[in-house]
Amino acid sequence: MEAHVFFLQLALILISARILAEIANRLGIPTVIGELTAGIILGPSLLGWLEVTLQLQLMAEIGIILLLFKVGLETDLDRLTAAGRSAVSVALVGFAMPFLMGYALARELFDFPPMVALMLGGTLTATSIGVTVRILQDVGRQNSTEGQVVLGAAVLDDVLGVILLATLYQISVEGQISLLALGRICAFIGAFFLLAPLLARILSAVIQKLLGKSTMPGLIPSAIIALVLLFASLANLLGAPELLGGFAAGIALSRRFFLPFGISLAHHHAFAQRIDVQTTPIIQLFTPIFFVVVGLSLDLNQVDWSSGFIWLFSLATVTIAILGKLAGGQVLFRRHMVFRTAVGISMVPRGEVGLIFAELGRASGVFGPQVYAALVIVIAYTTMLAPFWIKLFYRRYGNHPSLAFEKRLEESPSDSGFHPG
Amino acid sequence: MEAHVFFLQLALILISARILAEIANRLGIPTVIGELTAGIILGPSLLGWLEVTLQLQLMAEIGIILLLFKVGLETDLDRLTAAGRSAVSVALVGFAMPFLMGYALARELFDFPPMVALMLGGTLTATSIGVTVRILQDVGRQNSTEGQVVLGAAVLDDVLGVILLATLYQISVEGQISLLALGRICAFIGAFFLLAPLLARILSAVIQKLLGKSTMPGLIPSAIIALVLLFASLANLLGAPELLGGFAAGIALSRRFFLPFGISLAHHHAFAQRIDVQTTPIIQLFTPIFFVVVGLSLDLNQVDWSSGFIWLFSLATVTIAILGKLAGGQVLFRRHMVFRTAVGISMVPRGEVGLIFAELGRASGVFGPQVYAALVIVIAYTTMLAPFWIKLFYRRYGNHPSLAFEKRLEESPSDSGFHPG
Repeated sequence: MEAHVFFLQLALILISARILAEIANRLGIPTVIGELTAGIILGPSLLGWLEVTLQLQLMAEIGIILLLFKVGLETDLDRLTAAGRSAVSVALVGFAMPFLMGYALARELFDFPPMVALMLGGTLTATSIGVTVRILQDVGRQNSTEGQVVLGAAVLDDVLGVILLATLYQISVEGQISLLALGRICAFIGAFFLLAPLLARILSAVIQKLLGKSTMPGLIPSAIIALVLLFASLANLLGAPELLGGFAAGIALSRRFFLPFGISLAHHHAFAQRIDVQTTPIIQLFTPIFFVVVGLSLDLNQVDWSSGFIWLFSLATVTIAILGKLAGGQVLFRRHMVFRTAVGISMVPRGEVGLIFAELGRASGVFGPQVYAALVIVIAYTTMLAPFWIKLFYRRYGNHPSLAFEKRLEESPSDSGFHPG
Repeated sequence: MEAHVFFLQLALILISARILAEIANRLGIPTVIGELTAGIILGPSLLGWLEVTLQLQLMAEIGIILLLFKVGLETDLDRLTAAGRSAVSVALVGFAMPFLMGYALARELFDFPPMVALMLGGTLTATSIGVTVRILQDVGRQNSTEGQVVLGAAVLDDVLGVILLATLYQISVEGQISLLALGRICAFIGAFFLLAPLLARILSAVIQKLLGKSTMPGLIPSAIIALVLLFASLANLLGAPELLGGFAAGIALSRRFFLPFGISLAHHHAFAQRIDVQTTPIIQLFTPIFFVVVGLSLDLNQVDWSSGFIWLFSLATVTIAILGKLAGGQVLFRRHMVFRTAVGISMVPRGEVGLIFAELGRASGVFGPQVYAALVIVIAYTTMLAPFWIKLFYRRYGNHPSLAFEKRLEESPSDSGFHPG
């Protein structure tokens, strides 16, 4: 690809994403919808001006990794841990239900072979962490109690998705499941989550030290972005999704992260502030590229709208995709119905992970064109419409007592200083 | 290429560039040398961990375009225009001398065919605008009188280089020069330089208007970077070097740009300030990638150091490369010798454009491996050592009266407000 073509594509993506996000914002629609729509308009679905190239894909992945870094930066690990058990339940049920229901639907009602049914179930499992955190940001609920449950569940969902993908890949290649290989993946991912924040915190202390000694400008952008990219690679190396590397780096650099065993690494407010000011423009530059590229990937031209099967099959699948995630929210028995529903619908958007499953299914010949097209509809539908429901839901129930921001009981002394929110 | 490999490469580039730039800074060496050295160490010359891929090349080109944007932003068009006639003389002589001397050397002393001699002359012509502006920034002379002459001459050099490249390409393909085609290239490039700043200024006024109305954060990074990329593409479309698109956009957005005919487009100080604060981290992130990639491109393993021919030929060529540019400075008859020399040595660094010529010569079979290797030495030598000489020169002669910052006579009333320098 020639450079000027790439520059033109990037410029087109940035400008159209911004214009449609501004329009969405005026109309009271979540801005992420604007960016996704920009991709659908520019891509093969409508104008056909752009398609997903490797170069754009890489820019998009930097975008989602940086977005997760930002989410990590703004996450209070105590809160996230407090939401832990709820998040695990929501993730497990919200993962298992769509998978099992998808499998059953494909086997029982449509009589597909087992492998197709498995891949179909897999495609329906993983919540789009990107769309979900963006919509939570858009409606201002990122740091709410249910927001933390959703964030934790979405992160776990992504991990489960990767493990399932590896399992299905094994089955399709070797015809059986190797428990040893699976155990290794889980152990590696576990190791990543235990070690990454510690390592990132140490590196951040090094960067902070260097910053005090450096007389040249520009240390923070280079060093922090390099750190985030490094952790994305590390995550990949250990079998975890790359974007979780960004998340781990963000958590470690957040103001509210404290190492175990009382180890204290100086992490001054001024440093955190500088990281924030100097990385924000970079994150703002790259993030929209991700959502536009998701829009580009949704090729609605693949869909033969006149086919009765597609309508029936996609309708059934969409229903399962939604019900399965709503069921995940219902598992929080101690919470009010409104809280459960808030969590459930926030988990509905699929997007990037679902597309990876669907794409793999198509490329390996498991999905025929009709099944693939139906899945594109399901993903497009949940990605594009769930943000509306979430916004409408909060407009109606946002002040419900069950959704009140909770006071943290275990408020730590070091907490009294600076509150970003 | 897999994403995680790309991320790892980028992280490696960012980290090593920073470390070596910090070391260079401590040692009193120009920091750009540190970044180039990082590339030489990581690249095929030494460790062989990285090579120039299309993806890295694109990142690097964004880096150089953004650097030129920044240079444009900090450029005072009045000063640049005031330096205009001097810059044209320096550019023409400093372009013609290495070309003619290179041609003569190759024909007379080494008896090469005419096409080889032409390409060789071409390789020696163009000053590396990237290295030159970085070194001027490093020694704090970017806005000096001689700095403006050098900047103007380097810009013209780049344009002349592109025209020469197009001409040589025509000769090699069609066996003759089409004056019509050449005239068209010149007309297009001229049109670009006349229209681009005007267009960029109008677009910037639009962005500023939108900024007042937008309630979402993140407009400036998207909009300004999109604008710069758009102008890089536009430059390419009209046959000008892409980085000059970035330069034109920067000039148009600088505080000191005024449209002809007294057309005034509101361009508030606060807006310029916001552009500066929000684009600086992005520029700081991308710029080092460019210089590391230049270092990666200099494959010193290509050189057979035991060959007598290579030593002789490269020594002769380096001499010409240096003398030719020094001659360009000498053309400023009214200036003191020190001023002339400052301009001359600042024009010595070759780099990216020379590499493009050399690469084209090799790819088209005009240059054999020996000539190519010799040219790599010449480019490496002028790129890596000229910054030293410039730094040493200013340490010795920096306070010479002929290099004093000149007071501008035509100080405009609107000028009294804010001075960035």
